Formats: sequence, C-alpha cells, structure tokens
Amino acid sequence: MLPSEVIERKRDGEELGTEELRSFLEGYLDGRIEAYQVSALLMAVYFRGLSRGELDTVTRAIIESGRRLDFRRDEGPPAVDKHSTGGVGDAVSLVLAPLLAAAGLRVPMMSGRGLGHTGGTLDKLEAIPGFRTDLDLAEFEAVVEEVGCAMIGQTREIAPLDGRLYALRDVTGTVPSIPLIASSIISKKVAEGIEALVLDVTCGDGAFMREEAGALDLARTLVDLSESLGLPCTALVTGMEAPLGRAVGNALEVREAIECLRGEGPADLEEVTLALACELRGVVREGEDRREARERLAGLLADGSAAGRFARLIERQGGDPAVVDHPDRLPAAPLCRPWTAPAAGWVHRVAARQVGLAAVELGAGRRRMGEDVDPAVGLELLARPGTRVEEGDELALIHARTEEDAGQAAVRLDDAVRIEDSPPDAGTESLRWEARRVRWRVTARGVEPAG
Amino acid sequence: MLPSEVIERKRDGEELGTEELRSFLEGYLDGRIEAYQVSALLMAVYFRGLSRGELDTVTRAIIESGRRLDFRRDEGPPAVDKHSTGGVGDAVSLVLAPLLAAAGLRVPMMSGRGLGHTGGTLDKLEAIPGFRTDLDLAEFEAVVEEVGCAMIGQTREIAPLDGRLYALRDVTGTVPSIPLIASSIISKKVAEGIEALVLDVTCGDGAFMREEAGALDLARTLVDLSESLGLPCTALVTGMEAPLGRAVGNALEVREAIECLRGEGPADLEEVTLALACELRGVVREGEDRREARERLAGLLADGSAAGRFARLIERQGGDPAVVDHPDRLPAAPLCRPWTAPAAGWVHRVAARQVGLAAVELGAGRRRMGEDVDPAVGLELLARPGTRVEEGDELALIHARTEEDAGQAAVRLDDAVRIEDSPPDAGTESLRWEARRVRWRVTARGVEPAG
Repeated sequence: MLPSEVIERKRDGEELGTEELRSFLEGYLDGRIEAYQVSALLMAVYFRGLSRGELDTVTRAIIESGRRLDFRRDEGPPAVDKHSTGGVGDAVSLVLAPLLAAAGLRVPMMSGRGLGHTGGTLDKLEAIPGFRTDLDLAEFEAVVEEVGCAMIGQTREIAPLDGRLYALRDVTGTVPSIPLIASSIISKKVAEGIEALVLDVTCGDGAFMREEAGALDLARTLVDLSESLGLPCTALVTGMEAPLGRAVGNALEVREAIECLRGEGPADLEEVTLALACELRGVVREGEDRREARERLAGLLADGSAAGRFARLIERQGGDPAVVDHPDRLPAAPLCRPWTAPAAGWVHRVAARQVGLAAVELGAGRRRMGEDVDPAVGLELLARPGTRVEEGDELALIHARTEEDAGQAAVRLDDAVRIEDSPPDAGTESLRWEARRVRWRVTARGVEPAG
Repeated sequence: MLPSEVIERKRDGEELGTEELRSFLEGYLDGRIEAYQVSALLMAVYFRGLSRGELDTVTRAIIESGRRLDFRRDEGPPAVDKHSTGGVGDAVSLVLAPLLAAAGLRVPMMSGRGLGHTGGTLDKLEAIPGFRTDLDLAEFEAVVEEVGCAMIGQTREIAPLDGRLYALRDVTGTVPSIPLIASSIISKKVAEGIEALVLDVTCGDGAFMREEAGALDLARTLVDLSESLGLPCTALVTGMEAPLGRAVGNALEVREAIECLRGEGPADLEEVTLALACELRGVVREGEDRREARERLAGLLADGSAAGRFARLIERQGGDPAVVDHPDRLPAAPLCRPWTAPAAGWVHRVAARQVGLAAVELGAGRRRMGEDVDPAVGLELLARPGTRVEEGDELALIHARTEEDAGQAAVRLDDAVRIEDSPPDAGTESLRWEARRVRWRVTARGVEPAG
C-alpha cells in the first residue's frame, strides 16, 4: 500500500491494520517515509483519533525503536515510576523518588523539561549546583542499584522514534492529541522496564486538561494502554486549578521539595505525593491498609530518611548534597518583591496558568524549546483559595532578575489572584479542588473516588 | 507568528489573516517553511476548509508565484478557456478549442494529464504522431495568434507554487479538498490572462463529485473565486454517470473528436461542447439568442471549418495534420475484441468509473504519476442506458495490447454495464443524465437549470 493511501484511510476514519501502520512508522526511521507524510498522518490522527488497536501498534513501534531496560529480570525490590501530565509548582517527583527509595523500592525515573506554562523535573534538578541529568544508561542503572533511585532525562537509546515524532509534532500543530500523548508517555515507561506505574493526570486551569471529563478520558486511555502492554498502572486525577504547594520556579521548588522531604512541606504537595506512592505495587504492605501505609511513609519524611536519600542521590549525580541541609546554597534571585492584596476580601481563585506564565516571563521557563532557564527566579504564593485577606497583606513574593521583570509578574498576579467581597461558595471547582486535591482513582477496573 | 501557530489556528477552525497565510505559502517556496509543515496545514485545511478570504489569499499567492500572461492587453479577439473537473471519454477540449478558434476567438488552453480513472487532454493530443504539448510560453502565444488556439501542458513559469502544492498533496492524502482544488484550477486560468472562463463541473459515477449537491457546491466555489479575482466565469454541471461519447482511450477519443469536429460525432459530446461554448463571452453575438449561436457553431462543425482549424493546430504543434482526413493514421491496438450482451433486456446503467478503470488497465491511463500511457488501447461503447438489447449484441469493442488485457477489460464491463429484464424508470439518475447531459448553469448570480 502506498504511503498516501495509508494517510487517506486514516483521513477518512478507517482503521489502519497493524502491518501498514507499523511499516509506515518504521519507514519514517529508515527514510522510506518522508516527514511531510508523517505530519499529514499525525494531523489526520488529531482529527480522527486512533482505535485501541492502532494506539497499541503505535506505542509498540515506539518501544521497539530503541533499547529496553528490564528491572524485572533480577531479584531486587520492585522497580516503579510515576508520570505527571504537567502542572504549575508541581515538585512531586523530587519528593516521591527519594521517598520510595527510602521505603525500599527502586525508582529509575526519566523525566522531561518544562514547556509552555508548566515546569519540568529536569530543570528543577539542574537548579542544584553540579547536578547532572545526562547520565548514560549504565550509570543510570548503577545509581538506581546504589541509591534506590536515579533521575535523568530522555536518552536517544530509549524510544528514539518518540523523540522524532515529538519534534515533528511540536512544529506541526499536532501535540494536543490524546492518543499521541498516550503513546509518547506509556512507550517510554514500558521501555524503562519497570514493574508498576502511577500517573498523575492533572486537571484544571494549569493543566493540559482543563475539564474533568477530558482528564478522566486521558487517564482511562493511559491506564488501558499501559495495562495492555503488560505494565500495571493506576492513575489519579488531581487538581491543578491553583498551583501545587507555594513555590513556582526551579530552585524555589527544590527548596520546597526539601521541606516536604523533611515532613515540613505544604499540605497539598504532601497529600498528592503520598497518594501517588500508595498506588504503587509493593508500597502498601501485606496486612496494612492504605492509611497505615501513608502514615508509615509520612514517618520516612519526618525522620529524615527520605531527605537523606535525596542527599545521596544528589551526590551520586554530581550535585552538591549540602543543599539538603543548607537550602541557601541554592541559587537565589537578586530581587525579592512582595505582591500585596489590592483590597480586603476573600480569595476566590489563584489561576495556575497565569501564575505559570508569570514564572516563564521571569525566566523560570521557556518560550520555545532549547532556551536556557534561570534557576533562581520564580514566585512564592502565600494566598490560597477560600482564605480571608486584608488590604496590603503579602500574598506572594516575586523572585526576579530585574525590577521590570518583577513588575510584569505583578501584573500577571493581579489577573491570576481573584479577590471578591463575599466568601466563595464551597461548591465552586476552585474550592472543591482546594479541599481535596486528589479526586479520582482510575484503574484497569474502572473509575472510583480517590480514598 | 511561528509556523506551528499558523497550523494550530487553522486546526482549531480559526480564520487565518492574509499576511500570515501569504507568508506561510511564500515561505514554502523560499525555504523558510518546511514541507512537513505545509502538509500538516493542508490536512488541517482538508478538515476545516478555507474561508472565502483565505481561499482568495491562497489563490493569489499561487498566481503571483510565477509569470502572468495577458491576452487582454491587445486589441485581438476575446481570449477564453475551459476547464473540466474530469471524466471518462471526455474529449470536449479537443473539439471546443478548434471550434472556438473557427468562431473567431482565441483559446490559449493549458491542460493536464489523466490520473486515476479519468483521462487527460495532453495524453489524447500526444496520441497524434509528433504532437508536442511542451511549447514554451513565447511559442504558445505565437500559435494562439496564428491559429486561434494552442494546447499545452502546465509550464514551470506559470503558477509554480501550484505544482509544488499539487505534488505534495498527491503524496499526503490532501487532494480531495474543494478549496484546494478550486485554488489550483482558478489560479492557473487567471495566470493565463484570459477574458472569460467556462467550467465543466462533472457529476456522477465517473466524476470527482458523485453527488449533485457536491458538484453544485464545487461549481459555486469555483465561479465565486474566479469572479472575485476578476475573471468572468460560468460553470455547467454536466453528467458523468455514463462515459461521454462512445470512445474511451487516447487515439480512440481523438478519432471521435475529429468526427465531432465534422459534425458527425456522438450527440452527447456535441451537446456538451456547444453548451460550454455558448457560455463564453464573445460567442453569442449581439442580436442572437443562445439557440441561434448554437446552430451557427454547429454549422462551423458541419462545414469543416472547425476540423480545418484542428489540422492547422496539429501542424503548428509538430503533429501529423493528415490524421484529420485519415484517422487510420492514428495508432491502433493489435487486438479488437467485441463484448456482447450476456442476456436480452434493457441497459440500466453504464458505470463510467468502471469503464475508466478498464481503460487504465488496458494501458490508456496511469496507476501513478509519471507512467507512460499507451495511445492505442481503449474501449468503444455502443450501448447507452435505456436501450433494448438482445443476447449476443455487440455492446462494446475492446482495443487491447494482449488477449489477457482484453479479458480483464471484459470482466470490468460485466460489472459496469447493468442489463435487466424490465426497462429502467425514466426518473433514475442514469436515465435523467442520459436524456439531458447538461443540467445546471452556475453564474455569479446563482444557479439555474441549463437552457
């Protein structure tokens, strides 16, 4: 079948066969299929979607394009990982990986960089002086064995087709397609050779999925795909209506993650981290219920075990482990300006997307791929939805490189933080997500309210 | 604006501005925009369409990518042209151009080749020994001045962006998009510098548009676009349910066109040709009505004027003009096999698409671009829908290179020609198109039944 006929069949809503789809994708890697044919197919997929069988085929083709690790081959502790669909102020990975390692699991974690208004784990880790995220696979496996966790970026050895497809999608308007997103995420996790996966599917203003129905759809697609490829998976749908925690910005979030690793972090960050941890096979022990497991994990934060594990990880990956005890060794911005409540009232909303964009404009994120980020700048948000404030209360701190940058961020905050005369209704989305950050649990068996 | 943002905006159904769209298309020619971005945009256009303003912008960008002729600058007779959306056995151009020249007009005609099951004027002309369709523009203009008509293929000088876009569409599943088809057709006709255009928008089994509603939509889009670019235009919606005329195949259609040029051709071919001619400015004279003009044109066929003009055209473009008086000088296939009625009854349908595919399989057309065609092979259809036949009647002649080819074509005819026990209802589409081949007239003022 000609490549154009494959494109036409997808364009017309027909289901592609396993062989024709696989041959098309392999053709992109070996030069038989041109990039302009792949981009046309991707746009047709954007409009027509992928059937379950097609999604499976695409994901397998990505996995098989590169090396596969296998942590299941040995007798070691369960190897697990977590993926988030992205958020603002979301430093969960920095807490979760050392915590799980302290709990006796192995966490070979491959993460990404920030793009758009969302942050990325690699950018945060690199705010730690000396920290290297570009270990090769042999080093990566060695660090996992020694420390219990390792955190690196995507390598060319794992799922190279994903890198090719993502770069093409990024410049052809075909990024926001649920099946393409799902195949990209799950293929890399399967190739890590782990035994269990937990997904944080964020929902709300600062998330890729703003509506709950879309987030649930995406969660179901991801879980089904992962399970169909033999990787047990649970997803939690969590709120990203307001930023997670107080800090937004790379070094600021590392500092907050360290607080959380000591049991002294913001409640919402700890809530999400512990909830995700307890979904992973091997975390909740026999004879334990989930609440008891959560308390045991909280103990690993409070007694310094998790923080100690983070220090070992940093040292092993070339960074300065002293930041764990002395966070003032992290880069700091030259200016710190308060943003105060313009009037008395109640905080109705802290819109995560605007806050994320404020951080990008300060230099904490990228306007396009490949730009450098400034590790020091960002925001600390002291206001939470539902709280009473007086005029002039300090509701945020802006960490900026210049006064002009700080002023621009303040304008974004004027927009992001909505203060009104009367208290907000407890039933509004903003308040509901604030009261319970983890809403839905999606497994292969279905959807249920998170416990 | 980034190229990807332009693609995203079209993908999301937003209207693109003149400048961003023009810059995107110009960028494809000058290398700023990659083919994989253009193909993604074209696929988004397939799904989202183009607004009237966007269609205008695309068409102007194609026109301005190359040279423009201008037959309006001098005091000569009106320069006119015709375009058909394609059909089976459709040799109208070969009759129409010499006829209009004999009537005193100028016809600078640029035509295409056959693709899929449809034939192409260039392939038919090249069945005439020696005929050259690759004149340069200076020669082309000279032949128009001397003979009154000239017939060539698309040159790289006229609308080169169309050639680039068409080649890309052909391999990326983005050919069948009404706005893309319209911009491709109208841009080249405007660049010819003519004063009036008539369009033959075919409809039915053998046409690109199988349904009347689609054909009317396409006709309206084409007429509106042409008029908005200053080129007066009328479209006729004509039947392509059964093949036009009797002959399907290159030399066979040239022979039939010559018969028609002498006033001895099939009635339907003459009907469509004269109807199209009378839509062109300068054909119907002052004080004449359309019927009188039609009779005058029929006189130019009967008295040999049109055939003589065709002989001059052939001679001037390097071909053997003796074929007009001696059509047996045209290439002939080694085999001629009859196809007979398998049973007595009434012919209900002669499906043009199947007949066209039979001709392609005999070698008269292409399976993909760039292939050579066989000028000699094809079919002659003696059966028309609605006629009574007896078992064993010769209903077609198959002109083939081999017995195997002839056998394959016969199988196609078994499928294409439907014979039943009772006569067909006069109200069926097949019979209605047979009774009146020209159904609708579409002008800038609207749609009306063709007179």
